[in-house]
Amino acid sequence: MSELKRKSPESLQDRLDQVHELLRRHRLVENLVHRQEGEHQDLVESLVHKQNLVELQRKLDELHPADVAYILESLPLEERLAVWQLVKAERDGDILLEVSDAVRETLIADMDNEEIMAAANSLDADELADLAPDLPRDVVRELMDTLDAQQRERLKSALSFDEDQVGAMMDFDMITIRDDVSLEVVSRYLRRFDALPDHTDKLFVVDNDGLLQGVLPVKKLLVSSPDLLVADVMSADPVVFDPEDDASEAAQAFERYDLISAPVVDAQGKLFGRLTIDEMVDYIREESEQEVLSAAGLREEEDIFSSVWKSVGNRWAWLAINLCTALLASRVIGLFEGSIEQLVALAALMPIVAGIGGNSGNQTVTMIVRGIATGQVQVAHGRRLLRKEAGVALINGFIWGVVLACIAWLLYDNVALSVVLLSAMTLNMLLAACMGVVIPLIRLRLDRDPALGSSVMITAITDSGGFFIFLGLATIFLL
Amino acid sequence: MSELKRKSPESLQDRLDQVHELLRRHRLVENLVHRQEGEHQDLVESLVHKQNLVELQRKLDELHPADVAYILESLPLEERLAVWQLVKAERDGDILLEVSDAVRETLIADMDNEEIMAAANSLDADELADLAPDLPRDVVRELMDTLDAQQRERLKSALSFDEDQVGAMMDFDMITIRDDVSLEVVSRYLRRFDALPDHTDKLFVVDNDGLLQGVLPVKKLLVSSPDLLVADVMSADPVVFDPEDDASEAAQAFERYDLISAPVVDAQGKLFGRLTIDEMVDYIREESEQEVLSAAGLREEEDIFSSVWKSVGNRWAWLAINLCTALLASRVIGLFEGSIEQLVALAALMPIVAGIGGNSGNQTVTMIVRGIATGQVQVAHGRRLLRKEAGVALINGFIWGVVLACIAWLLYDNVALSVVLLSAMTLNMLLAACMGVVIPLIRLRLDRDPALGSSVMITAITDSGGFFIFLGLATIFLL
Repeated sequence: MSELKRKSPESLQDRLDQVHELLRRHRLVENLVHRQEGEHQDLVESLVHKQNLVELQRKLDELHPADVAYILESLPLEERLAVWQLVKAERDGDILLEVSDAVRETLIADMDNEEIMAAANSLDADELADLAPDLPRDVVRELMDTLDAQQRERLKSALSFDEDQVGAMMDFDMITIRDDVSLEVVSRYLRRFDALPDHTDKLFVVDNDGLLQGVLPVKKLLVSSPDLLVADVMSADPVVFDPEDDASEAAQAFERYDLISAPVVDAQGKLFGRLTIDEMVDYIREESEQEVLSAAGLREEEDIFSSVWKSVGNRWAWLAINLCTALLASRVIGLFEGSIEQLVALAALMPIVAGIGGNSGNQTVTMIVRGIATGQVQVAHGRRLLRKEAGVALINGFIWGVVLACIAWLLYDNVALSVVLLSAMTLNMLLAACMGVVIPLIRLRLDRDPALGSSVMITAITDSGGFFIFLGLATIFLL
Repeated sequence: MSELKRKSPESLQDRLDQVHELLRRHRLVENLVHRQEGEHQDLVESLVHKQNLVELQRKLDELHPADVAYILESLPLEERLAVWQLVKAERDGDILLEVSDAVRETLIADMDNEEIMAAANSLDADELADLAPDLPRDVVRELMDTLDAQQRERLKSALSFDEDQVGAMMDFDMITIRDDVSLEVVSRYLRRFDALPDHTDKLFVVDNDGLLQGVLPVKKLLVSSPDLLVADVMSADPVVFDPEDDASEAAQAFERYDLISAPVVDAQGKLFGRLTIDEMVDYIREESEQEVLSAAGLREEEDIFSSVWKSVGNRWAWLAINLCTALLASRVIGLFEGSIEQLVALAALMPIVAGIGGNSGNQTVTMIVRGIATGQVQVAHGRRLLRKEAGVALINGFIWGVVLACIAWLLYDNVALSVVLLSAMTLNMLLAACMGVVIPLIRLRLDRDPALGSSVMITAITDSGGFFIFLGLATIFLL
């Protein structure tokens, strides 16, 4: 590939492997040194040790901050902190922005206030706002004092928004121009910059009062005649956002209209900041990870190498909820202990009814919640969706119910028991389908998050409901 | 907001509401006309009908193709096809690219070959490649014939890659320049274009043989002196991809390095195509949706308004797997029917042991699978993670086991039963934790997808295992 150095994911992996190898050697030497403590310390080994560290530091300096962040995240705590010490102080800020919240906490805990201040000094107001919630309070106050008036104002305004609002995600790196100048003048103006901000795919056209008039895409600037006026070339109808807009809606708009950057204007139409695609991509990724985590009953992102106690804290809440629903299901069974004593096969078959109902209900609720999230499902669709899901449940319940009834008949040689099993399975899947449609739609109407805990609720209903339907039918018809 | 028209998500919602309102009126009139069939058809009503359609068509014409796609997706089948008929033929291609696979199928099924050919004519080779798998075979063949040699070559090569490979996602809209010309010449060259391709944030520098020499970011072109040569300004070490690279790795690289576009080069270093951030965003979104869907046992994306039979087809596979695992758990219980007959409380308590083990195991497996996906977890970390997860499970198992043992003691007044319950819960959560670490790591080592079905497998183990441990301990110690 001649002069062109490849930097694709594979070669990144190579670099990471090199760092890991250096760390391993570093560890070996440390162990050796450790073992010889008290004895005569071998000069050669100490040199090897130092050499390793120097090489490691050199490797780290070559890496993009995002790659260093990635390495830090994939290291257990002690090694993570050892590597963190090797990173040059002026890069600390950029790297802290890239690591996950959980890992950021461990890194900041290892820094003293001076180091934090030094790291923060290289950052813009919007980047500081991202870090601020994780910093010690007195450091934030001290930081505020070092900023100039404009930066302080920006930091304050960024901090005033909710984490999920556009205002908390925007930056202030916009280049503004007037609409009454020629493109020639714009080009000359741009050449006065040393570098343009990242993601500058458009310039923002404002009037004397800072009101947004339109945007001038760089693409248009490049192909248009230099004599034209900005007003003739700009698009006067750009996609704009309000700082109070919901970030997930902004992300959808970025996706839908293939945006790279977009202006954020306040209620008066004044240009306030700008949103860029990289923030939106991070948001989309985080949002989807949150969805996967909460479906599994993890409250938040967890540092995979965090301590046992921290993990217990992250996980106990959902286990407690699960315990309550399991206890409820257990009490439902308790109601029918007499029936089980008479026909112990019921105990063996009842988990099947509950389990397959839960699976089917989760399929329905996932479909509906996703439809709500993408805006395809409205409350008005309720009856139509209910009909469809009930149909699916009836067919699936009947088909698998017949299969299972045959197996149960082979095992227990009891036709009545098989018929009860078939009926219970079909009914429980019907219950699951209805609840799978109704619960998220009710939550939508009440303006609550339709996704939160919906899977737990469905499982609780299909467990208790399944046991009740199966044991109830059995008690009525079999005993 | 003076002259500036807002087009933020809210006002999009307004437009969508207008379309829905027009559709509703359209439906009302149709019903009316339908009721009067055979009678004297009222001219006025037919006019109202037409007027509605014209207004609807006008509204649709104003909307971005992505918005029309969104409307089509949120409509039940009959109305979806009615709206689809109103869309201008030359926009069909763009809209087909935007809708989800499931909805695209319903739209294409409604078009005849001529309409499809007309829609396809407005598309580029890489866009055709996205549509081709959903088109009738003879249409694809006919299409191939209408393309010029270069386009046909590109379509063929795009189709030759796997859906998840970079080669299937790249486009061919790159602007190439030589490195021995001045920026002034580049600027003049660009001005000869009517418009630059979307997402042109860099120009690709190639030599006479088409080998990639570097990239010239547009940002640099704008701030640098026009007299400089491309070779002096370009970056010679860009992030490049191979057409056979995995799309998920490319997406991670785009995220990590905040890329907007990147060159794709073949094994010889020849420029082959380009990747853009919009494709990567779509990929990230689809990948995360796939994860959520498959966790719930849905094989693929499902049109929420699809027919009952289609949905049954999409869902039966996982229900069948679930049925098998449930049957296995049921047979484990069957082994201990004698014990349950003697102490029926076991039947009521056993689902708790199984359920909370499943929840806990799913937490572990989700953490590990995520860690593997982000590259933080390697096989070498196995022992450390096993220790940690076992610790978490022991603590959680013991705490909740004690709570539950107390409740069971209150209910059944049987200390021995409570102790068995406590032991079984702790052991089953330990089993869940170990399997939650071991299963994904084994799959990783065997080069399989660690996520696929891991939740089903864990639940199967904790169900059967939980029943076995609890009933086994009870049989040994209580009877």
